[in-house]
Parts: sequence; C-alpha cells; structure tokens
Amino acid sequence: MDSETDEEILRATGRALCAHGFADLTIKHIAEESSLTTAAIHYHFDTKEALLTAFLDRSIDRIERQLAAETADPRRRLAQFLDVLFTPPETDDGEFAVALMELKAQAPYQDGFRDHFERFDQRMRQEVRAAVNEGIEAGEFATVDPATVARSVVTMANGGHVRGVALGEEPAETRAVVAAYLAQSLGWAPEVDA
Amino acid sequence: MDSETDEEILRATGRALCAHGFADLTIKHIAEESSLTTAAIHYHFDTKEALLTAFLDRSIDRIERQLAAETADPRRRLAQFLDVLFTPPETDDGEFAVALMELKAQAPYQDGFRDHFERFDQRMRQEVRAAVNEGIEAGEFATVDPATVARSVVTMANGGHVRGVALGEEPAETRAVVAAYLAQSLGWAPEVDA
Repeated sequence: MDSETDEEILRATGRALCAHGFADLTIKHIAEESSLTTAAIHYHFDTKEALLTAFLDRSIDRIERQLAAETADPRRRLAQFLDVLFTPPETDDGEFAVALMELKAQAPYQDGFRDHFERFDQRMRQEVRAAVNEGIEAGEFATVDPATVARSVVTMANGGHVRGVALGEEPAETRAVVAAYLAQSLGWAPEVDA
Repeated sequence: MDSETDEEILRATGRALCAHGFADLTIKHIAEESSLTTAAIHYHFDTKEALLTAFLDRSIDRIERQLAAETADPRRRLAQFLDVLFTPPETDDGEFAVALMELKAQAPYQDGFRDHFERFDQRMRQEVRAAVNEGIEAGEFATVDPATVARSVVTMANGGHVRGVALGEEPAETRAVVAAYLAQSLGWAPEVDA
C-alpha cells in the first residue's frame, strides 16, 4: 500500500466532502481536489464508503495524537482535552463540522461509520475518565464517579457539535458550559493553583 | 387554506422522510404516502423546502403543546420535560431522529430550517429556566443560575439526539445523565418528597 498516495487521497476527500457534502460527493470530486485520476482513486479504495471510513479513521488518529496527554497534571489534562475538542480546525469555516454531521446521520446505514464513531466516543470518554481519576487520587478533585463525569462531558461535546451545525453556535459557548460543569462537579478550574 | 389537506400532506411528509431520508425525498414519495397527486401537493407547497419547513413547524407546535406545564410543582415540571424530550415517538424505529438529524445538517443552507431549530432551542431553554426559577423561589432547589442549567440540559439533550443516531444509543441513557446533572446542581429528584 502506497501510504503517500492514500494520504493525498484522504486529504482530497476532506476538501471534497466540505465542498460538496456527503450526498453529492463523488470520486470525480475527489479526483478534482487531487493530482490523481478517478481510476487511481478506485484502485486504492473500492467504494466511496471504504474511502470515507478510511477518512474517518485518519481523523480519529489525528485527534488521538492530539489527546495524548502532554502533562501529568489532571487539571491541565482536562484543559488540554477541551482545547482539542473545542478548537475548530484551521482553514475551516465550519464545513468540516457539517460534513461530519452528515456522516453521523449515515451511521445507521454504514457499519464502518458507526464503528468509527463508537471508537472515538470510547477514546474521548476514556481520556476524561483517566484525568478525573488522577485528580481524585491526587486529592485535587471532589470524589465523584469518573464514568458519569466522562459521559456528561462527552454528551455535551456531542451537543455542541450539533448546535454548531444546526444553530451556527460557536464552539466556545459549549466549552464554557462544559467548564462550568467541571467546576461544579470536580472543583476543577483550568488554572493550576500556585 | 385547506388545513385538513395540509395536515394530510405533512403527515405523509413525515412518513416519506423516515422512509427515504432528506437527500432522496421527492414530492412523488410524499404523494405515494398520501391520497393526493404531486400536482395537488405542489399547489399547497411551492417547494420541498417550504414543505419541510412547514413539517418542522408542525413538529415544534406538537412538542410545545406537550411541554405546556400541567403542574405547578417545579420538580414534576422538570420530570415532565424529560418525559417529552426522551420518550421516542410511538410507531417509530429511530427513523424520525435520523431524518431530523439530516435536516439539522442542512440548516446552514436552509434559513427556514435554522429558524425552526433556533425557535425550538429557545422554547426548550425557556421551559427549563422557568422550572428552575420556580424551584429556587419555592426554596426547593439550590440557588444556581437558571440560564446555565437550561443551556447545560438542552446541550446534553442535543448530544443525546446525535448519540442516538450515530451510536444507536437509547434516549434513556442521556436521560439518566441529565437527571444526574439536575440532582447534583439543584438537589432535584423526580419524586416529590411526601
């Protein structure tokens, strides 16, 4: 497998998805966003669904790398999580969030998409759970159920995604809601006490 | 305007939307779900978008009637809100939630859809805010910012919608998350103390 070509195809897929949306996306659109022919793209990915599943996997891998904790401090670790989740990608005008929402709406019909979203959900919840656990063990957070906190935070983040698309709301608004929740339930504040 | 015919068309729109999804929905599909011809439907609604906007308005009106508080007790009022939000419609297998998610993904391109979702969002937040306010005034809830609680609850409900579609999660799971949040922030419990 030629991973450089795959990478070029997947980058072009992201651009074509933002420009045309899921329903109207064709391999031809993807070819137009790359230096490759439709035949070459078909050679690498059998179907549009296989291509989009690979595209989603690439997105999740990228976010997983961003989530990889750079700090042992549980407060900073939660702040980093919020940064990753609520900072929109550069050079993006919300189209990626819309395209992703369309793929979520297709998940009931596409097992590959659903598997992706489940894996991503578990990864996000695991990150919050781990940070909350550490904070409790360090005596920095109130004693709460880390799994409940994780599910609440991730559910609010899911809500922020749909609010951004349906209402045009800024990610920062949901970030503030999540921060208020963490402050209330954990005694969390983004800044570490000196 | 013949409101009985409108009503038949909008009911047929709901069935056709669940069966075909937004992208593939045609006036012909709606005619097939009703006793009317495509010409008759076009006579009542100029475009597919006008029809879907009317369909969304009808859905919101129905939920607003369900939300109309039947009780003066703030605890019961919040419980009623959760009942309305997290009880899936009868004779539905999740298709309506998927169709609604597709319409949300179209909101950036359809002002009529966005207006609908904004109106619905305001109505939901208003309901939670009012119930929380009453509970605080009655000395039953902790003194919190009702607007923050309302936004948190509605954001989690939005998240529950997308989780149902993308992950196949049951509405009851998000309901439990919201109930735990209300218990923690307000001292709310669904049952009124005797």
